[in-house]
Amino acid sequence: MLSALDLARRIEAGTLTAAAVIDFCAAAIEAREAQIGAFAAFDVERAKSAARNPALIKTPLCGLAVGVKDIFDTADFATAYGSVIYTGHHPPSDSALVSMVRRAGGIILGKTVTTEFATLQPAHTRNPHNPNHTPGGSSSGSAAAIAAGMLPIALGSQTGGSVIRPAAYCGVAGFKPSYKILPTLGMKGFSWYLDTAGLFAAGVADVAFAAAAIAGRDLRIDQSEPKPPRIGLARTHIWEEASAEMQAAVETAARKAATAGARVSDITLPPIFEDAFRAHAIVQDYEGHRALAFEYDHHQEKIGPILRAQLDHAASITAEEYDAARRTTKRARQALADLMGDIDVLLTPSAPGAAPEGLASTGASIFNRLWTLLGAPCVNVAGLADKAGLPLGVQIVGRFGRDRAALEAALFLERVIAR
Amino acid sequence: MLSALDLARRIEAGTLTAAAVIDFCAAAIEAREAQIGAFAAFDVERAKSAARNPALIKTPLCGLAVGVKDIFDTADFATAYGSVIYTGHHPPSDSALVSMVRRAGGIILGKTVTTEFATLQPAHTRNPHNPNHTPGGSSSGSAAAIAAGMLPIALGSQTGGSVIRPAAYCGVAGFKPSYKILPTLGMKGFSWYLDTAGLFAAGVADVAFAAAAIAGRDLRIDQSEPKPPRIGLARTHIWEEASAEMQAAVETAARKAATAGARVSDITLPPIFEDAFRAHAIVQDYEGHRALAFEYDHHQEKIGPILRAQLDHAASITAEEYDAARRTTKRARQALADLMGDIDVLLTPSAPGAAPEGLASTGASIFNRLWTLLGAPCVNVAGLADKAGLPLGVQIVGRFGRDRAALEAALFLERVIAR
Repeated sequence: MLSALDLARRIEAGTLTAAAVIDFCAAAIEAREAQIGAFAAFDVERAKSAARNPALIKTPLCGLAVGVKDIFDTADFATAYGSVIYTGHHPPSDSALVSMVRRAGGIILGKTVTTEFATLQPAHTRNPHNPNHTPGGSSSGSAAAIAAGMLPIALGSQTGGSVIRPAAYCGVAGFKPSYKILPTLGMKGFSWYLDTAGLFAAGVADVAFAAAAIAGRDLRIDQSEPKPPRIGLARTHIWEEASAEMQAAVETAARKAATAGARVSDITLPPIFEDAFRAHAIVQDYEGHRALAFEYDHHQEKIGPILRAQLDHAASITAEEYDAARRTTKRARQALADLMGDIDVLLTPSAPGAAPEGLASTGASIFNRLWTLLGAPCVNVAGLADKAGLPLGVQIVGRFGRDRAALEAALFLERVIAR
Repeated sequence: MLSALDLARRIEAGTLTAAAVIDFCAAAIEAREAQIGAFAAFDVERAKSAARNPALIKTPLCGLAVGVKDIFDTADFATAYGSVIYTGHHPPSDSALVSMVRRAGGIILGKTVTTEFATLQPAHTRNPHNPNHTPGGSSSGSAAAIAAGMLPIALGSQTGGSVIRPAAYCGVAGFKPSYKILPTLGMKGFSWYLDTAGLFAAGVADVAFAAAAIAGRDLRIDQSEPKPPRIGLARTHIWEEASAEMQAAVETAARKAATAGARVSDITLPPIFEDAFRAHAIVQDYEGHRALAFEYDHHQEKIGPILRAQLDHAASITAEEYDAARRTTKRARQALADLMGDIDVLLTPSAPGAAPEGLASTGASIFNRLWTLLGAPCVNVAGLADKAGLPLGVQIVGRFGRDRAALEAALFLERVIAR
């Protein structure tokens, strides 16, 4: 994989150029893209041309190549949102987040594959660790491109588990910041209460570097050794739905963290969290039925069967059920704040297990939905694997607005796992 | 003005057709649009053709004509967001709210004029009560079209005071619902924390009818007489910036409400609200600098001077200031909930006074920003006027999520004012 932080340091030191990074990406694309299918579009020549701008060396991203999930509008690349309804669509402007990437000195190398409208309807991307397995979704191409060394940084989005799950399945760092830290304007939305922009990179320090550069925030965590965090091991009420290997991975991570000096305690989540877990689908689908109303009402035959069934069902959710779900969410957010009074982060699975076989499903977001609903920062930490060698990701969940602490804890965990 | 509720009742009763309503609108447009300039585009023939669909009589909106602020994407009308950058832009789809209008049986008669990107940079629309005065903004065309009898229902949006202020200046009912009740997906955004979709109609019962129909919510308040509400008279810390006539209007409204049985008490807002008032501009401008990054970075010469100066200034706002403003907001929201423990609504000015003379400014949003920031439902109540006969609007502010109670109190107030 391409470490964004390492590349940026070498560019700053004058031992590497941004154009050479594009060459690294191009070589990996040449070698692997035909099999993986991570990109909806890319333009190596245009990126190399842009990378030759000498001013980029002074920018936060140093001219590093960035992939953009094809759910974000770009003025220079067609943007199809993973839907045949939008094949060849050229937006008139960049989405806000893409503009922020460009302002930070990032070069958009291409658009990465999204599932249809960033939902559960799969796309064709394959998992670089085993092409017979899903890379997860909905940010399928972003996670796969990082894993295959085709990009150092990629943008994604999460409404259920669309950043953390593919990061886990592909063995890369995924970061879903606190709700509304990164804008979703100019992104095709599904749920205005849940849609959250996120980032992918090789390791936790890389994704923190990218977040710091793009958001202009104090999120770089590579300048000092992270302190041992206070970790709450949250098995959650769906622990039994995690595979034995995932359960072992989480417990291994917890044990290694404790050995390295972290204070690890078992946390039992209060019952409100089970209500909130159920509230997620109500909020998401009620809003999705309205967010995709134009497509559902005018192009229903061009919507995939999984998404169409979801939208069919969503039509029956009432405003009263939706309002109740939002009230539950509000209570659960307070409960999470109360719960984390004397711990820094929660440790919990990133997914039920390793990437499932086949491309008919992108896997389940059951270990992600709750944290998306609660707006908490989440980081996938890679480094563990199942017997077949497929990545098993564990998840750090931070307090709302404490994104830096979440990233520091994730970096700590990544390092102790790697020992 | 065209009462949406009255028209819908007559259509349901079979004494009027949706096509005839389009004719009413067309006649008013013919008579007044050349002077007022409320529309960015309209298509009477297409609307009449759509209105002939007999199934519309069974829909919530009964085929009523609706105007859409040109900040919302429409697939059938060009959408320019009030900016020359987007002249002739044809979005590939309807915004979510426009789809909801169509699902509810509304017919989009045209796009109404917005100020540039729904900001303070004025457009050319004039006030129907006196064409030498501004109609307010940013939903200038929607408010003016209702006031001139050119539409029974219009969509707007508010980031500062863009629904309530033009409604006040034009003497119509304006409703800014609780934050996130109506979707802003497919609307050109300026501030993702503040942008709120809203509605205009002739009277409070009309706007409640439209909101009920479009949102599919229990918001119709025309079936029984509203009960006298418990009103907190909130002069706010900027009371001295209201004109003497506006101060008198608010106090007249309060006195009439008390005479009619409402419990009216003076409310002193706690100091956190002054902090929140200041936080509004920080949140708005920090986000706006990112929301319009593409336009600012690529088409700066095509941005008007007021907006450009705002965005220039916004570049200096730090993430720390922004985060602090959001924390202040959170505290102020709790303070508002606490404050309203034993009152139903606040009564406060909708604007500093009547519509200012000239078109160089759309007036000040100082009496609106705080409530937008706090996400509370707001209703402009018309019926009072200054010595020159220009409307003076008073504002009802409800508790978050208690939109029905806010509308009921506004209807009560509208009726006692009219006595």
